[in-house]
Amino acid sequence: MAKDKKVEKITDMEEDFAQWYTDVVTKAELIDYSGVKGMYILRPYGYAIWENIQSMLDKRFKELGHENVSMPMLIPESLLQKEKDHVEGFAPECAWVTMGGSEELTERLCVRPTSETLFCDHWSHVVHSWRDLPKLYNQWCSVMRWEKTSRPFLRHREFLWQEGHTLHATAAEAEAETKQMLEVYAECCEKWLAMPVIRGRKTDKEKFAGAEDTYTIECMMHDHKALQSGTSHYFGDGFAKAFGISFSDKDNKLVTPHETSWGMSTRIIGGIIMTHGDNSGLVLPPRIAPIQVIIVPIAQHKPGVLDKAAELQARLKAAGLRVKTDDSDNSPGWKFAEYEMKGVPLRLEVGPKDIENGQCVMVRRDNGEKTFVAFDELEAKTAELLDAVHDGMYAKALKNMEEHTYVAHTLEEAKAIQEEKGGFVKTMWCGDLACEMRMKDEAGMSSRCRPYRQEHLDDKCACCGKEAKEMVIWGVAY
Amino acid sequence: MAKDKKVEKITDMEEDFAQWYTDVVTKAELIDYSGVKGMYILRPYGYAIWENIQSMLDKRFKELGHENVSMPMLIPESLLQKEKDHVEGFAPECAWVTMGGSEELTERLCVRPTSETLFCDHWSHVVHSWRDLPKLYNQWCSVMRWEKTSRPFLRHREFLWQEGHTLHATAAEAEAETKQMLEVYAECCEKWLAMPVIRGRKTDKEKFAGAEDTYTIECMMHDHKALQSGTSHYFGDGFAKAFGISFSDKDNKLVTPHETSWGMSTRIIGGIIMTHGDNSGLVLPPRIAPIQVIIVPIAQHKPGVLDKAAELQARLKAAGLRVKTDDSDNSPGWKFAEYEMKGVPLRLEVGPKDIENGQCVMVRRDNGEKTFVAFDELEAKTAELLDAVHDGMYAKALKNMEEHTYVAHTLEEAKAIQEEKGGFVKTMWCGDLACEMRMKDEAGMSSRCRPYRQEHLDDKCACCGKEAKEMVIWGVAY
Repeated sequence: MAKDKKVEKITDMEEDFAQWYTDVVTKAELIDYSGVKGMYILRPYGYAIWENIQSMLDKRFKELGHENVSMPMLIPESLLQKEKDHVEGFAPECAWVTMGGSEELTERLCVRPTSETLFCDHWSHVVHSWRDLPKLYNQWCSVMRWEKTSRPFLRHREFLWQEGHTLHATAAEAEAETKQMLEVYAECCEKWLAMPVIRGRKTDKEKFAGAEDTYTIECMMHDHKALQSGTSHYFGDGFAKAFGISFSDKDNKLVTPHETSWGMSTRIIGGIIMTHGDNSGLVLPPRIAPIQVIIVPIAQHKPGVLDKAAELQARLKAAGLRVKTDDSDNSPGWKFAEYEMKGVPLRLEVGPKDIENGQCVMVRRDNGEKTFVAFDELEAKTAELLDAVHDGMYAKALKNMEEHTYVAHTLEEAKAIQEEKGGFVKTMWCGDLACEMRMKDEAGMSSRCRPYRQEHLDDKCACCGKEAKEMVIWGVAY
Repeated sequence: MAKDKKVEKITDMEEDFAQWYTDVVTKAELIDYSGVKGMYILRPYGYAIWENIQSMLDKRFKELGHENVSMPMLIPESLLQKEKDHVEGFAPECAWVTMGGSEELTERLCVRPTSETLFCDHWSHVVHSWRDLPKLYNQWCSVMRWEKTSRPFLRHREFLWQEGHTLHATAAEAEAETKQMLEVYAECCEKWLAMPVIRGRKTDKEKFAGAEDTYTIECMMHDHKALQSGTSHYFGDGFAKAFGISFSDKDNKLVTPHETSWGMSTRIIGGIIMTHGDNSGLVLPPRIAPIQVIIVPIAQHKPGVLDKAAELQARLKAAGLRVKTDDSDNSPGWKFAEYEMKGVPLRLEVGPKDIENGQCVMVRRDNGEKTFVAFDELEAKTAELLDAVHDGMYAKALKNMEEHTYVAHTLEEAKAIQEEKGGFVKTMWCGDLACEMRMKDEAGMSSRCRPYRQEHLDDKCACCGKEAKEMVIWGVAY
C-alpha cells in the first residue's frame, strides 16, 4: 500500500509549479500538516536537512566569535512597545498569551516574532563598560508570525531559525558585522546549497522594522520568482537608546552602543526545493543532503551482493560520508524512484556482474549521468562526483538566473518583461518611494535589492525620468 | 567596577544553601532574569553547558536509531483533551494563546507543556503498516508550565529539554525502549556529569500523567535533598487508542501500537551545581565544562610568557580540549577566583620560572591539588588529570549519597531521620497510596522511586505494618 503511493507520479512542474511544490514536500516526507493552520511538522528527513544547515552555520558563527544563548519565548507587551517602528511592524502579526493556568494575565505576552527587544532588555542589565563589548550572540529557536496565508517552509506561522544579535562600541564595527554576516549567508547558499545569490541592500520600504539598513541575499527560483534567503540588519543606536543601554568608554565617558541582528530560517529549505527540484522530485545539494549516497544492491539474493554492499557502505562511512543501503524487498526500480524523489545526490548500484568486474555504477541525481567506479577508487571518485553534482547544480541555477535577468529603461518595458517572461528586472531608480510603489502597483514587482554590484544602465529613473541614484533589481517574490 | 563585583564573596553554602545557589547561578554568569517571572535567560556560559550535554545525548540517541523532528509549539485545546489522565495532569499549568494578531481565536491553543498529543496526532496520519514501525523520534525544544513558584534551572515556566517519543509494534519492545532510555540518562549522569544516580520506578502517585509506568533516576544534592534527573515513560496502548493509531501487522490484522516518551531538561544543570559546587562557586564536570583548562600566565609582561601560553593552548586545543587563556590585565589572584567561580576543572599556571624548568603547574578545581607537569608530557597529563577530576567528583558525590541514605522500619523512625539528618530513607512498603500519603503528610517525604536494586529490610510496610511488597526510597525533593 505504502509502495503504491510512492510510485504515484507527482504533478509536472511546468503544468502547475505550486502543486508540484506541495507534492514534493509531502511525498519526499519533509513535512506533515498539524492541527493548527500554518504550523507544520518537520518530519525526520526534512528536519535532517535543517540540522545539516544548522551545524555548518553554527560552526561558522563560532569561528567568528559568536556565542549561543537562550532567551524566553514570551515578550511582555510593554517591552515590545519600547521601539516604535519595531512594534508597528510586528504587533499586527503577534500571537498573544493571555491566560496562565486558569488565571487571566495582568499583561498579555506575545510569542516572540523576533527577539531584538529581549536581547536589548538583557543587555541593559549586563553591559556597563567598554570591557563588556562586543556582545556577539546567537540563538537557535522558533518564532511566530500570525499571518493569514501559509505554505510549507515558505510561510509558517511558526518557523525555526537562528537570530544573531550583536552589540558594538562603534557604528563602524556594527556595520562591518552586518556586512560580514550577510557574507556568511551568501557563502552558505553558494558553497553549501549550490544556490547563486545577489547581495544587496533593501530599500527603506522593504527594510526590517526598526532597522537603519537591511542587507539581503536574493535567490531566483526555478519559476523565476525571487526568494529572500537571508537578511542582516544594522540598527545604529536606535534600539540601544530606546532600551537605555550605555557603557563607559576608556575615557570614562557614557556612550550608547550600536547593534545588529541577522537571521536565516527553514524558509531556505523551500528555496532549495524550488531552485534545484525537477519532475522526479527533490534534488538535494550534496553538502547538506541527509543521505549523500544511496546504495542499491542489484539481485541482492545472489551470494556476495549484500556483503559487498555492506563493505562499500562501511568504506564510504569511514570516509566521512552520509550513506545508506536499501536492502528492503522492494524492487530496484521502486528504490530508484524513491531516492530520486528524496533527492539523494548519488546512487550506487552494485550487482553480481559489477562484483565480477571489480566495480560499481554511480548515478548522479542532478543529470542522470552514469559512471563506472573501480572498487579501489571508491572513496576518491565518490568525493569527486559529489563535488561535480554540487558544481553542476550551481551552474544550472546560475544559468537560470542569468537567462532570466533583464534590463529595462522604462516602467512600461519592465512591466512587459514581467508579464511575458517573468524573472528579475534591473532598472535605474531615483530613490523615491513613489516610484517604488508604481513599480509594485503597475508592474507587480517589489524591489528585491539595491545590489552591491551596481551597473550604470541609464541616467534616469525608469519610473519618473528624474535623475537616477542607483540600480535596483525588481521581481515577484515568495 | 565589573572586577569588584566578581571578587565579592558568595554566601557560604552551610549558612544559606538557597542563597548560595542563587549567588552561584548569577555570579558564574549562567543566568539572567527576564521581564517575565519564571522565565530565565541562559547566558553564554550557562547555555554552553547545555550545548555540551545536548551534543553528547544527541549522538547517543542517534547511535540507538532515533531521528530528530520538530513539532509545533501550540496544541489545540481539543487535541490536548483526547487523553483524559494527561489533560488532567497538564491543563492546570498551561499557558494559553487566545489571540492571533487582533483577532480572538475560535479555539484556544496551549503552549506545549509536553508533546505526546502532537506526536500521536502525527502518527495517526503516517502509521499504517508494520513496515512503518518502530518510530523512534526525538525533539529538542522548550516547553512551558505555568507554575506558581520558580527557581533558576530547577523550576522554570519555560525550560529547554529534549523529549523522545517512540511507537512500537509490541508492548515488550516499548518496555525495552523505556528501560533503555533510562539507562542512557543514568550513564549520562554517571559518566559525563559525575553524578551517581538511583535507578527505579515511580509509584502510581508520582508517575507521569497518562503513563502506565514511569522510570526515573534520582540524584542526591549536596544538601541531601533529591533531584529527579531524567524520566522515561511507558504508555502501553492508551494514547494510541485515544488517538486512533493502528497498523496492519504481517498477517494483515489491525493492531494498536505501544508508546514511550522520555525527557531530560536544563534542570540537570541545577543538579550539577548543587551536587558539585562549593564555597568558591561552581565545580563543573570536565566532560561537559565549556572551558576544561584555563591558562593563567604568571608575570605575563616578562618576555616569552605569553608566547609559551599560546603554544600550550594550541597544543591542548589540537588534542581536542576546550581551553582558554586569560591574558587580560587583571591580577593572577583575580583570575584564580574568577575561574574557580566558573568551575573550570583545571587551571594551568605558567610563568618565567616554570619556563626555565620546562614545566607548568596544574591545579585541580575539585580539591585544589597542584601538580607540576613537564611540557613534553602536557597532553597526556592533562587528559589524566581531567579524568582524575571526574573520578574525584563522582566519588565525593557518591560518598555524600551513601552517607546520607538510611534505613527505617517505621514511619516514626523515618520521620526522625528526616528531621535530624535529612537524606534518603529506605523503607518497605505495602503498595497502598494511603501509606505513601502518610509518609508525605507526617514525615514530609515523597516517594522518590521503587529502586531496581531492591533490598529486603523487613517483612512489613513501615507505615501500616501490613505485608510489604517492595522497598521504596523516600526523600525531600526539589
